[in-house]
Amino acid sequence: MKKFMNAPGDVLAESLSGFAAAHSDIISLDPANRFIRRRNLVPGKVGLVSGGGAGHEPLHLGFVGRGMLDAACLGRIFTSPTPEQIVAAAQTVDAGRGLLFIVKNYDGDRMNFQMAREISGLGIDTVIAADEAIQPLPGGATRRRGLAGTMVMERMLGAAAERKFDRTGLLSLAERVNAATRSMGVALSSCTVPEVGKPTFTISEHEMELGVGIHGEAGRSRTAMMSANAIAKEVVSTIAGEIPIKGNALVVVNGFGATPLIELYLMYNAFAAVLSKHQFNPVRRLVGNFVTSLDMAGCSLTVTALDDELLGLWDDPVHTPALRWNA
Amino acid sequence: MKKFMNAPGDVLAESLSGFAAAHSDIISLDPANRFIRRRNLVPGKVGLVSGGGAGHEPLHLGFVGRGMLDAACLGRIFTSPTPEQIVAAAQTVDAGRGLLFIVKNYDGDRMNFQMAREISGLGIDTVIAADEAIQPLPGGATRRRGLAGTMVMERMLGAAAERKFDRTGLLSLAERVNAATRSMGVALSSCTVPEVGKPTFTISEHEMELGVGIHGEAGRSRTAMMSANAIAKEVVSTIAGEIPIKGNALVVVNGFGATPLIELYLMYNAFAAVLSKHQFNPVRRLVGNFVTSLDMAGCSLTVTALDDELLGLWDDPVHTPALRWNA
Repeated sequence: MKKFMNAPGDVLAESLSGFAAAHSDIISLDPANRFIRRRNLVPGKVGLVSGGGAGHEPLHLGFVGRGMLDAACLGRIFTSPTPEQIVAAAQTVDAGRGLLFIVKNYDGDRMNFQMAREISGLGIDTVIAADEAIQPLPGGATRRRGLAGTMVMERMLGAAAERKFDRTGLLSLAERVNAATRSMGVALSSCTVPEVGKPTFTISEHEMELGVGIHGEAGRSRTAMMSANAIAKEVVSTIAGEIPIKGNALVVVNGFGATPLIELYLMYNAFAAVLSKHQFNPVRRLVGNFVTSLDMAGCSLTVTALDDELLGLWDDPVHTPALRWNA
Repeated sequence: MKKFMNAPGDVLAESLSGFAAAHSDIISLDPANRFIRRRNLVPGKVGLVSGGGAGHEPLHLGFVGRGMLDAACLGRIFTSPTPEQIVAAAQTVDAGRGLLFIVKNYDGDRMNFQMAREISGLGIDTVIAADEAIQPLPGGATRRRGLAGTMVMERMLGAAAERKFDRTGLLSLAERVNAATRSMGVALSSCTVPEVGKPTFTISEHEMELGVGIHGEAGRSRTAMMSANAIAKEVVSTIAGEIPIKGNALVVVNGFGATPLIELYLMYNAFAAVLSKHQFNPVRRLVGNFVTSLDMAGCSLTVTALDDELLGLWDDPVHTPALRWNA
């Protein structure tokens, strides 16, 4: 394991400290409770709180600011934040109109945000971000994890909250965003958790993992390395079958941390060609690192079908460390 | 070599095609002459043209747009663009006030931009971006290559050109930016050029390359892997000694392509602590992948001392695929 660090146990605290210093115009850090909060709260706005394990930067901390989150709680790497952290963050950003938790669909996160909601005594609703294309599990079960569509959820709800949507309106919007959004990831290499010191999984020079999770969990299949066009065909056909409405779409090509832009743009090219055959028109596009898995090489595709309201929300001003436009 | 690609020889063309499609609101691609141009030229503005080998994305193509470049010419990976490409780009973005070439300090780039200037018949001045801390060479010679400070140069001149500086004013500004800017890079792994198929250099699990170039060229020394704090001390003390004015500064922590944000922010934290001891105050900060070396793991630090004029230029509106604020 070769990483920029001092001691493995200090990676998260030092990285958070650097993040807070680099973006002190927008956010501030509560180091004791390990959450990032928006510097200037908006009175009369529902407070949006998200979070999860660290290691996915810029998710969630990079999405705190105008038009997205009010606070993001960070657990240890790939570990849910504690209910106490979440309560502390929620109390801090409550601006009198109640709170909304945006939680990725993982058992640990769901449980801890649920406990936080119960013990906080605050008015809180919860949205589960579950954008992954249906993942078949042994025994006939299925699941949808939260992948890069979580960013889309945080953005759409953040814009709506800024427009002063109430909690009922936000919950209804969240259902539409979940229904309109699907993602799928592909890994070429494992990530390495600093405190573990060795790769989470092993994979040969000739293999890839299709449908990988953002913690390096196994996906739907381990296959021989495929061409960019073959990957695009497989990923898009899986995603497209689960999005009922075609036409205008937001397309996000997301790097997992160790894949350079030259490859992500090549994948955008490959994805766009197949999306067009499936009648998607990518009217909004993002290519970069948004929801990562430490130093994993790989990428994911997220597609959100955009009606006029979603397109308008997406284009509203946003000013966060990781996304900024019209502001 | 495991990369997202179809054939190694098609990586660049397909990646450029994806880039042009993803950012078609701002730029367009001339595929025959392989340059990216700004979609809307500004009459009466000096045209800014840069370029160089591909493989450093988002440099240069991601910096085309309002407040930065009018065109960027891309050579093959790590290879200078041809004079013919450069002339074609220059002719396309000439808006009647003459042109400025911004050229990184590499022999191939300097030669080809010089030839383009001679054969074009256009009114062109040239700025050499050479921000690297002095690199000692065998035999007592020295050099300064163009590293991530090239982005700073493109931004400052781009903002000034938008304010309608003439060529003389831009040349004088470029001298000040070069004098105020220093960079130094560190590599933990090699990059792999797709058409070569194997790493450019070998480096063990316990070593790093200090002062590496952005094509994987050897740096000033190969050392045992150092802690983040030790790297920061070494890099900042080298850079700081070459910047005469301390105080307000722009600080860029730049990833080389395969290093995730969690590590880049940790390095920001380490760099900031040492910069403070050297009397630098980082009033503007960027952390991310800006000038990369394909899939090399590593990072560089760039510091630009900011007087009021440079700070104002930096804050002017910019709207490009890779940098956007106040626009």
